[in-house]
Amino acid sequence: MSRQLHLGAFIMGVGHHAAAWRLPGAAPANLTRPGYFKALAQTAERGKFDYLFFADRLALSDRYGNNLDASVRYLAGSRLDPVALLGLLAGATSRIGLAATASTTFNDPFSVARRFATLDHLSEGRIGWNIVTSTNDGEALNFGDQPILEHEARYRRAKEFVEVALGLWDSWEDDALLHNGHTGEFAEPSRVHYLNHQGEYFSVRGPLNVPRSPQGRPVLIQAGSSDTGQDFAAELADVIFTAQPDITKAQAFYQRVQQRVREHGRAEGALKIMPGVMPFVAASREQAQARFAELEANVHPLAGLALLADSMNHDLSVYPLDEPLPALAEIRGNQSRFKLVQELSQREGLTLRELGKRFGGSRSHRVLAGTAKDIADDLEQWFEGGACDGFNIMPPYLPEGLDTFVEQVVPELQRRGLFRRDYQGSTLREHLGLARPPSRFSQRA
Amino acid sequence: MSRQLHLGAFIMGVGHHAAAWRLPGAAPANLTRPGYFKALAQTAERGKFDYLFFADRLALSDRYGNNLDASVRYLAGSRLDPVALLGLLAGATSRIGLAATASTTFNDPFSVARRFATLDHLSEGRIGWNIVTSTNDGEALNFGDQPILEHEARYRRAKEFVEVALGLWDSWEDDALLHNGHTGEFAEPSRVHYLNHQGEYFSVRGPLNVPRSPQGRPVLIQAGSSDTGQDFAAELADVIFTAQPDITKAQAFYQRVQQRVREHGRAEGALKIMPGVMPFVAASREQAQARFAELEANVHPLAGLALLADSMNHDLSVYPLDEPLPALAEIRGNQSRFKLVQELSQREGLTLRELGKRFGGSRSHRVLAGTAKDIADDLEQWFEGGACDGFNIMPPYLPEGLDTFVEQVVPELQRRGLFRRDYQGSTLREHLGLARPPSRFSQRA
Repeated sequence: MSRQLHLGAFIMGVGHHAAAWRLPGAAPANLTRPGYFKALAQTAERGKFDYLFFADRLALSDRYGNNLDASVRYLAGSRLDPVALLGLLAGATSRIGLAATASTTFNDPFSVARRFATLDHLSEGRIGWNIVTSTNDGEALNFGDQPILEHEARYRRAKEFVEVALGLWDSWEDDALLHNGHTGEFAEPSRVHYLNHQGEYFSVRGPLNVPRSPQGRPVLIQAGSSDTGQDFAAELADVIFTAQPDITKAQAFYQRVQQRVREHGRAEGALKIMPGVMPFVAASREQAQARFAELEANVHPLAGLALLADSMNHDLSVYPLDEPLPALAEIRGNQSRFKLVQELSQREGLTLRELGKRFGGSRSHRVLAGTAKDIADDLEQWFEGGACDGFNIMPPYLPEGLDTFVEQVVPELQRRGLFRRDYQGSTLREHLGLARPPSRFSQRA
Repeated sequence: MSRQLHLGAFIMGVGHHAAAWRLPGAAPANLTRPGYFKALAQTAERGKFDYLFFADRLALSDRYGNNLDASVRYLAGSRLDPVALLGLLAGATSRIGLAATASTTFNDPFSVARRFATLDHLSEGRIGWNIVTSTNDGEALNFGDQPILEHEARYRRAKEFVEVALGLWDSWEDDALLHNGHTGEFAEPSRVHYLNHQGEYFSVRGPLNVPRSPQGRPVLIQAGSSDTGQDFAAELADVIFTAQPDITKAQAFYQRVQQRVREHGRAEGALKIMPGVMPFVAASREQAQARFAELEANVHPLAGLALLADSMNHDLSVYPLDEPLPALAEIRGNQSRFKLVQELSQREGLTLRELGKRFGGSRSHRVLAGTAKDIADDLEQWFEGGACDGFNIMPPYLPEGLDTFVEQVVPELQRRGLFRRDYQGSTLREHLGLARPPSRFSQRA
């Protein structure tokens, strides 16, 4: 069989597009309804997606104007806790992988390692963890009275956090459990290990109080495309999420990251590169573009600017709406995303108001509008052209945007031999073609 | 209808009794299996229980000998993260309440408030939070390099923690959501509130990024029976879990706590008092007692002492096994539990070895062994005698211990008019006869 692409269903609220909740027939109340999320997961599973994915944030947006007015009024900005949500979905599905973000900035490694190990047990091996550093003062203020850590410190903390989590996931060897009712021996103490980690940010003794999970550890996903972020992913991650605006840049990114993977001595194919794409699929190209235009027209500029201010961690309310984004030397938030936004703004000569509308739409991810064949052509070109290992599909409006992709684009990819017709394995690692890692302690024996 | 008693199904591993996992036919692998937990929740729901409840700990036990040997070898001591587990069970049930422990010592209030609000949405109003303070150095060492906080500091932190959580749950008023697609107004900013909490332990700005949940806030459960614990419950909790060895003491406890509830100006019936009971149910009294004796015989003394050392936060390995527990002036762990253990040990003249076996069994909760009629007689006597508002049923071995209770004891209680034949409401607050609290911000209007 030829090389197969991987697909993630990246779910955001009632759609990635900031105006999705305003569509006639949209149901913004779905944001807190269990039946809505179950149905989405089951649709993605019917489409044989590798995984369903939820991002996360730990505050409402309020960097624009340093108040909640714009974001509460114009954004469908509430978010359920993704660990509880993955617990629900583990029971509502049986094959598809389930992944979510947890911040290394405002959590502790023991709790995160335990939660994801638990989810891996409850899903029987289908869990992924998207490792992020939080970039926003609004989030910081829900966890203390200090502004957010600076970029390098965030990544130092993230790296130590992941090292501790890896140690905890290894702390029970696979054969630690004895379950010998006759002798009364439940487990073998020499196969359960203290970690005794003492580092710059964390002191964690271990072991975990959850036995080793079906995948050994969850699939590790990383989403930062800064230089530090790329290196972090090349060393530690199984999957990298990225926003790539065109195929040439994506090919260069792919080469650069895979080179770093080799430099870290990891095997070919150990890191899957998955750019985001927002597909508008319809029976004709015109219909798809009309739907896209309808949504774009409905983004309130302040909705997009509230999102952008939050991503940049920078108050944009001080700049005039009808002039271009001023040249900002440095921002404290998401730096690689900001670079894309700056390029877009200059290239197209956008005012801040226009930039707000644009960012509220695709948030600098790539938009495709066309027939199922058009979309499949584009994805095939990127995949065969060495620009990626697959895609994070970001339905602009839900649930219809996912339904349409599953009903129309997936079969087209299957016909071309690019995508599985059914799941072959049972764990997310198996879907992604990744090996199950042994415990470091078993290796020593 | 006469006053009805409330029942919680308190689930621990494969049974509360430390030797449950050794029974012929026991399946200790169930400890990490989703199907096992789903089936238990569905059984309890068939039995019309008010709620299913999971306790939690944040470390393996290692106070005995300050190493893992006794607990890993002899105890079925692993525990899944209860938030992920309640997420799973929210989807596997539709009426029963779902409650779990989260520590105020090793969590932060924003995360806990958000997780439980999320679970309340995903279960459509069926969630309870058991508020605990952690008492153990082994837990502390998974979250830093300091030993556990002292008793009063733990409770000060717990109280501030709960106050912040209550504020966050109120931060979205019930009518904050507008969902007006026509005007593009998602929610009304004047009905979403910053908290701006600055206290001794926490600085939390808020608001929560989850709208107000179906119950307004989860049912609040408290499980400490120390003087500070009682006062905490009398002021803030909806339910109190307690270990009461005999009816006279339970009646006195009931009076004392209800007096404190009145002193806090709360309504009659606002706090439900639920002692634990471990029932062995069989067709004859002899069979029930034989099953109890079989389990007691199979507790390894070190299994019980590992649990007891952990509860006391005190290394018991330094005392001779065949002499009585020495008089200890003070211990740093669970103080009310320790008092019960000391009384038991002195009353029955137990050696440390015997005490270990005994503690591994009921852990100082009350054991009932008999026919369904015997058990119902006892529960009725306590309930009608003003000793409690209901019971936390602690099945000694699972799943059979819960099956038997649901099939035999519940119908007997129903025949006597003491327990519901079906759910009347849809939320846990409704099952317990508790009002839905308004948001503090709505009240001000």
